Amino acid sequence: MSPKITTELLKQLRQVMKSPRYVQEPVQAYIVPSGDAHQSEYIAPCDCRRAFISGFDGSAGTAIVTEQHAAMWTDGRYFLQAAHQMDSNWTLMKMGLKDTPTQEDWLVSVLPEGSKVGVDPFIIPADQWKRMSKALRSAGHDLVPVKENLINTIWTDCPQRPCKPLITLDLSYTGVSWRDKIVALRSKMAERKVMWFVVTALDEVAWLFNLRGSDVEYNPVFFAYAVIGMNTIRLFIDGDRMMDPAVRDHLQLDSTLEPEFKIQVMPYGSILSELQAVGAGLSPKEKVWLSDKASYALTEAIPKAYRYLTPYTPICIAKAVKNAAETEGMRRAHIKDAVALCELFNWLEKEVPKGTVTEIVAADKAEEFRSQQKDFVELSFATISSTGPNGAIIHYKPVPETNRTLSVNEIYLLDSGAQYKDGTTDVTRTMHFGIPSAYEKECFTYVLKGHIAVSAAIFPNGTKGHLLDSFARSALWDCGLDYLHGTGHGVGSFLNVHEGPCGISYKTFADEPLEAGMIVSDEPGYYEDGSFGIRIENVVLVIPAETKYNFKNRGSLTFEPLTLVPIQTKMIDVNLLTEKECNWVNEYHQKCREVVGAELERQGRHEALRWLLRETEPLARVQ
Amino acid sequence: MSPKITTELLKQLRQVMKSPRYVQEPVQAYIVPSGDAHQSEYIAPCDCRRAFISGFDGSAGTAIVTEQHAAMWTDGRYFLQAAHQMDSNWTLMKMGLKDTPTQEDWLVSVLPEGSKVGVDPFIIPADQWKRMSKALRSAGHDLVPVKENLINTIWTDCPQRPCKPLITLDLSYTGVSWRDKIVALRSKMAERKVMWFVVTALDEVAWLFNLRGSDVEYNPVFFAYAVIGMNTIRLFIDGDRMMDPAVRDHLQLDSTLEPEFKIQVMPYGSILSELQAVGAGLSPKEKVWLSDKASYALTEAIPKAYRYLTPYTPICIAKAVKNAAETEGMRRAHIKDAVALCELFNWLEKEVPKGTVTEIVAADKAEEFRSQQKDFVELSFATISSTGPNGAIIHYKPVPETNRTLSVNEIYLLDSGAQYKDGTTDVTRTMHFGIPSAYEKECFTYVLKGHIAVSAAIFPNGTKGHLLDSFARSALWDCGLDYLHGTGHGVGSFLNVHEGPCGISYKTFADEPLEAGMIVSDEPGYYEDGSFGIRIENVVLVIPAETKYNFKNRGSLTFEPLTLVPIQTKMIDVNLLTEKECNWVNEYHQKCREVVGAELERQGRHEALRWLLRETEPLARVQ
Repeated sequence: MSPKITTELLKQLRQVMKSPRYVQEPVQAYIVPSGDAHQSEYIAPCDCRRAFISGFDGSAGTAIVTEQHAAMWTDGRYFLQAAHQMDSNWTLMKMGLKDTPTQEDWLVSVLPEGSKVGVDPFIIPADQWKRMSKALRSAGHDLVPVKENLINTIWTDCPQRPCKPLITLDLSYTGVSWRDKIVALRSKMAERKVMWFVVTALDEVAWLFNLRGSDVEYNPVFFAYAVIGMNTIRLFIDGDRMMDPAVRDHLQLDSTLEPEFKIQVMPYGSILSELQAVGAGLSPKEKVWLSDKASYALTEAIPKAYRYLTPYTPICIAKAVKNAAETEGMRRAHIKDAVALCELFNWLEKEVPKGTVTEIVAADKAEEFRSQQKDFVELSFATISSTGPNGAIIHYKPVPETNRTLSVNEIYLLDSGAQYKDGTTDVTRTMHFGIPSAYEKECFTYVLKGHIAVSAAIFPNGTKGHLLDSFARSALWDCGLDYLHGTGHGVGSFLNVHEGPCGISYKTFADEPLEAGMIVSDEPGYYEDGSFGIRIENVVLVIPAETKYNFKNRGSLTFEPLTLVPIQTKMIDVNLLTEKECNWVNEYHQKCREVVGAELERQGRHEALRWLLRETEPLARVQ
Repeated sequence: MSPKITTELLKQLRQVMKSPRYVQEPVQAYIVPSGDAHQSEYIAPCDCRRAFISGFDGSAGTAIVTEQHAAMWTDGRYFLQAAHQMDSNWTLMKMGLKDTPTQEDWLVSVLPEGSKVGVDPFIIPADQWKRMSKALRSAGHDLVPVKENLINTIWTDCPQRPCKPLITLDLSYTGVSWRDKIVALRSKMAERKVMWFVVTALDEVAWLFNLRGSDVEYNPVFFAYAVIGMNTIRLFIDGDRMMDPAVRDHLQLDSTLEPEFKIQVMPYGSILSELQAVGAGLSPKEKVWLSDKASYALTEAIPKAYRYLTPYTPICIAKAVKNAAETEGMRRAHIKDAVALCELFNWLEKEVPKGTVTEIVAADKAEEFRSQQKDFVELSFATISSTGPNGAIIHYKPVPETNRTLSVNEIYLLDSGAQYKDGTTDVTRTMHFGIPSAYEKECFTYVLKGHIAVSAAIFPNGTKGHLLDSFARSALWDCGLDYLHGTGHGVGSFLNVHEGPCGISYKTFADEPLEAGMIVSDEPGYYEDGSFGIRIENVVLVIPAETKYNFKNRGSLTFEPLTLVPIQTKMIDVNLLTEKECNWVNEYHQKCREVVGAELERQGRHEALRWLLRETEPLARVQ
């Protein structure tokens, strides 16, 4: 990995930072954040501006360029990668270390008095703008919006913004029509006394209209905004995608509809001017609802007194609670996914001892088996296929430089998932194809105990997911072990594999309470630097629980695993399990046998079926 | 309980709200919060202004009086009490109910356009001022500071502010001299680049100077402020307390000292003008450190650009970590406290069957036994002595109207504690003096399992207390039971029984990580409305833990119980305990026997010793 040479690019950027063609007054610093205009976690190539200017292409990082300096803030996952990918023009700012200054403090320390700091107002979220602007102002500087993105002005071979065809989803997948979703949204708007709602997150637009796209890798979304009024629907989207008869029919664009359900299609780029027009036409008490993560540009289009900002939008919250059609789709998707993984693990068991299977080969094979399943669309994230010491790198993705060959002497960790038209999967299994050491089994068993503690937890209605996080750690903690990531994230239904507003993490304090129908992952782990990584991940559905006393009718919840892939019993030290935990494993494996076994049988995959039956033999505790 | 008649008082208050003698312009509304100028949890009689104007004397509530209305906001604990204590002039605003408006919303709905809302700037914390002021301003009104407290102007028989003698604590109690505490504070100030620190919380002043007082019931504090500069110490305190030779000697007021340790004693009432003088004399970059809970008046004395506000002050954080002398003192105090409770429970066992012991009698008897112990000062909070259905009222305090007689047919819950010169105690035990039902034992055992789960928890350094809260609930949750309060609070060392910055609660998100030397309570419970209450509370010390793998030298923590009072084995359903839990109880009781037994022996309390020995017989699990 050789660093990107950025001397010329930085020179060009510093020129446009002073050019009256792009800035009213010269800016002494320019901020290049990671995100796109929708605050997406995964972004399209045309939005990888920070990677373009610096060479560093990790998923998180912010670049700031001044006349003299170029600095990059990123977190511990990426210190090594960023150091390798950036040339000596760049200073790496290691976030989380005690002596690393914040972006604001650093700017204040290097800028001449009364400086202007520029940023693209479409990329920076309103809440970040507010914080940074305040800090700079108190030091005598100004944060200023630069309308034309300065990276784009020097990025001559910038890829086009993707504009791929749309997929329409009918009621059998979504359970609720887009019309009924609009009705429900308007009723939430009426409750909060707002007249307009601005949809800025890509997965929220996709969910609302029961459409999917492929503009961003792994996320079945498309570039669009929507503005919903009490009597109007505006969809901002580019390309000839609206010419597709299936889409026109789905959205009833050519039907005679009640005016309040008539969708006005407008160019993607006209969102700002349209929103400004909305903002200018508001009467007193007419509020406009936006996410507080919406871009500064869109937020500013609405005069402050008329804004209604919340951390989670009503769409985000409605989307998280899956209906019966979505839940059934997720079940089907997970059964197909389990079939693919049974095939994969059976294949690996035969091939690994030959010494020819690398991490990349295994990842490709996993994709191959998945792609044989009905309604497969694409992967849901970059496959983490890692063996031995690579397994300890939590966000590892094999590349030729790091690609390791699987062997009977090392633990193999596979964290992978797919988008099917009926659901999204995300599963991690940790396997040993030889004889695991006692220590490896011990660690694996603690992780399993944590996984079960969450999966089998019973808790009252209204409980937030972060209150369950310590259950996943307790067995590890007792022996002085831990893992430095959260325990679970929300999962979309044929949508983003990471979604809010729920999760299970020691870090997540703004999470919304868990509700029946929500879907999250349960994925504790343990990582021994330089040696191995262990993680056991199921996607689980929140369901009502039955308890002896039922919390005085407050009701209670628990989880049902949707993922049905065997957990390698070879890795379990049965003597460390309680009777209850042992029963949990046996019942889980019994369900895998019944449900996935039937599907393997139906698909005529007899060898994989034999593998499944062998791997799901009941555990026996020594009394 | 008959309501206070407030017609005349409200008339007088409404007059002064318009009187040019007290307000520059008339105020259309006046806010009367609960607190004092130090944001204390417990307040002196002279600060009970809200109780004076309304009759409602619960611990939490805010009154707002306008020309037409008088309204009281309080929470669910006090709905009944407030309704009984207030006359028909008052509207009760039930906080937590869906339809109850916030104070801001209510004000906006009742006030004429462009109104002024007055409040005492010394009573309202700066963060609350900010929130309320913003809400009122956006609706066209103004929050204005009214310098003279308007309740005081009409409260003709207002008690004097207490000004009781001080107690000096020597090194054997505090472990660190006040000089060394000042040195440590200044080093924290230097780290943060602040030149001044303003001490506003009463327990922080007391801790810093190793002084105690008795101005507020249950809290050994005294009315004072302090302002610490890098070279100056100013103590704002009234009365002839500084004439006491012991105090003068302790503070070295008459010694020749380096100037930076010379304490300037100033009148309590001069804090504002002195702070304004400090504020006016600041050079650029000279910051002043205040708690963000300090009063609006004191915060405003420092120009905004010079303020450095934090939720927890360095004193709050230093005070929470007890040194060896304090820890030893706390141990001694808890042994003495256990002696008193062994005496009490032995006495109750004999007396309850006679039918003559009421809740008040039992509380008085507990105080009597405690007062016989060395260095006893006072109780640390109002004793919760409750039997049968009264036990289900979480903040119950027996009064003649509710006083119930203890019997062999009901559960008895005693939550009590004391201030000793060497430490503060807080312990809850739940007892049955007859034969408990199977259901009562079942509930008690779940609570005990939760208590043990927290007490025996092992967790890595840096863990925040709120991450342990669910451990206390897990056994209850499994059966559909829960309790609606936090699991633990910080405990002072011969100081306030509730203190920050640590705690164990599902609600506390701003808590600081637990550290070895911190002291918290562990008090899960279960409450069956109309029937009984169960709570098991120990005060526990955070200590280093030994684990097999020690978190890669990150280190780990656990708890050591300081409270050593038997847990009634009669109430335990042994079959619901795991072997580990059973061992925990037996080891705990063994320690009670050894440590408290020796002290009972030393004090010649043979009958109580026999009771202790009987109550601490080991549990035997049926295999």
